[in-house]
Amino acid sequence: MNIYLGCTVRGDRSTLDVVRHMARRLQAAGHVVLTTHLLEDDVEGDERARSSQEVYERDLAWVESCDILIAEASGSSYGVGFEVGYLLGRAPQSGQRAYVFYRRDRHDTVSRLISGLTNACGRVYPYSSTADVDAALREIPGLGVR
Amino acid sequence: MNIYLGCTVRGDRSTLDVVRHMARRLQAAGHVVLTTHLLEDDVEGDERARSSQEVYERDLAWVESCDILIAEASGSSYGVGFEVGYLLGRAPQSGQRAYVFYRRDRHDTVSRLISGLTNACGRVYPYSSTADVDAALREIPGLGVR
Repeated sequence: MNIYLGCTVRGDRSTLDVVRHMARRLQAAGHVVLTTHLLEDDVEGDERARSSQEVYERDLAWVESCDILIAEASGSSYGVGFEVGYLLGRAPQSGQRAYVFYRRDRHDTVSRLISGLTNACGRVYPYSSTADVDAALREIPGLGVR
Repeated sequence: MNIYLGCTVRGDRSTLDVVRHMARRLQAAGHVVLTTHLLEDDVEGDERARSSQEVYERDLAWVESCDILIAEASGSSYGVGFEVGYLLGRAPQSGQRAYVFYRRDRHDTVSRLISGLTNACGRVYPYSSTADVDAALREIPGLGVR
């Protein structure tokens, strides 16, 4: 499957190691991660070479074409929220699904639209450890992560 | 018209005066602002009385039922991004529209999904002053703001 793995570029990147861990798990299960450039240390430098409109149009095309979106949302950024919202707004027609992860110790500071996510086409996973993340990935239907 | 006026609850609320100004302009033009509770100083206290799921379901019902969404996104929060994305994901079917405002001096720090927004059903307005905000509101079709 094609997977949009979302994390913030201009916000708090302290959970980047978790996102990289997710990418390795997904790739090991044979999936294509469309957004590996977001995992680079210098993503901001790379993105600066493009106009904001180019980034918007590229990201939206990926959100529209992915099978599943997995997002790390602990940093509570507009971009991640936009991607999850855009996919879920289309999901009844598109059949796509979204899974949102956030650090459990941020529960009282992240948006309630993260912690309160209830959607037929998506689910939220609070986590405290990499083991929690792995357990969640194993639970997501069709991923085949071991 | 029913208007979803979005701003962050748990993020940077420094532009709240601008959002309150927008609400007054929209109400003076005869519109219903669905989200006036977000403009209260103690919104966090009020929201704490509800579960996250209740807030999510209430907000989504408003996003689904509004005619137009207007968001102040300078604080770059997940919640605002989710609302704008969700509306634009459905907009080709629903006929809804979204207008996103942000402070021009934050151009280099806000998400590129704000500054680069290009959508047949929406538009972004950077602003430097209340006069800029008023000019943008006058320009939005059907609002009748003077």
